[in-house]
Amino acid sequence: MQVAVVTFDGFNELDSFIASALINRCREDGLEAFITTPAPAVTSMNGVEVGGQRPMEFVAEADVVLIGSGVRTRDVVADERLISRLRLEPSRQLIGAQCSGALVLARLGLLGSMPACTDVKSRPFVEACGVTVLDEPFHAEGNIATAGGCLASQYLATWVITRVLGEDAARDVLDYVAPVGENRETAQRALRAVGAGRAALR
Amino acid sequence: MQVAVVTFDGFNELDSFIASALINRCREDGLEAFITTPAPAVTSMNGVEVGGQRPMEFVAEADVVLIGSGVRTRDVVADERLISRLRLEPSRQLIGAQCSGALVLARLGLLGSMPACTDVKSRPFVEACGVTVLDEPFHAEGNIATAGGCLASQYLATWVITRVLGEDAARDVLDYVAPVGENRETAQRALRAVGAGRAALR
Repeated sequence: MQVAVVTFDGFNELDSFIASALINRCREDGLEAFITTPAPAVTSMNGVEVGGQRPMEFVAEADVVLIGSGVRTRDVVADERLISRLRLEPSRQLIGAQCSGALVLARLGLLGSMPACTDVKSRPFVEACGVTVLDEPFHAEGNIATAGGCLASQYLATWVITRVLGEDAARDVLDYVAPVGENRETAQRALRAVGAGRAALR
Repeated sequence: MQVAVVTFDGFNELDSFIASALINRCREDGLEAFITTPAPAVTSMNGVEVGGQRPMEFVAEADVVLIGSGVRTRDVVADERLISRLRLEPSRQLIGAQCSGALVLARLGLLGSMPACTDVKSRPFVEACGVTVLDEPFHAEGNIATAGGCLASQYLATWVITRVLGEDAARDVLDYVAPVGENRETAQRALRAVGAGRAALR
């Protein structure tokens, strides 16, 4: 199972790398994440140049697509050519968005009538798309999920791992990456956030 | 104030990027972090190629030096030439290490008799250097700090921001990056971890 972590110029390192690093702890279980970029290299909001591991077209063959966030997402959604390269299939793929990534899902018409999570800065722009924004870190309905607040990217990863490999695999990853001595509460917090987000649609 | 986030080949993205991204939210307050590498580019443990923002020699002029972690830190400490490029001055600089970064501080003789935090995999190697390893996510004495568990890199950043700009600045950053709705508890947890780590030496 392959995960495309879509990462644009101006990206927030927390959003793309927390999700990808957590998911990549499941590589031996066949779940693997790749930084997926519209150009051979992209530069973060803090000036870090990162080489893409997969081109944008990889989203079409990925099983999971996570849209990262950054300071130029409004340029992304205004860029017809760039948006046309994001061919997603919610019937077949798990699709998630972090913070301003919700704008991309809205632009692609993937949110339908579902509410979304995003960060405080993106909120007015997501609402301007007619989407209700929740005061929560994570919300999923079916194959679509959104997370808000940079560090909620661990919840997006938790959702992906839980959906693909099950709760025990997610717990193992969270236990490993947690601050020493905070293993149990870190895992519980993330599993609760993801469970609560899923429960909301029942 | 400039922060060198020392990042070697095989680095863990969580460790270098969580610390640098949090610190870089203080750029307008004059505190700035740079991915600092021994070569023009390094490749992460998950195959992501990242361009260094500063060469290793930058550590000599930085006000704060954080040693990241990764899967090849034991090669780093065995590399006499690489280690000789890390000229640190604990009397003048704040110096922190994340997970296996504690091995580098031990190799440089910077831990003295202080105990350290590290991750479970690095623990036996840090102990083999004669260092007592704590079951805690963060510990600081004077200008030296160590953190254990990937996500404890937020505590290392919190320590740096608190020491340079004060607790309010750290709280503002944590409030911003926290999962939506978990702002207060995220800030409190980090400030508590850092406070507890400092209190231990009194």
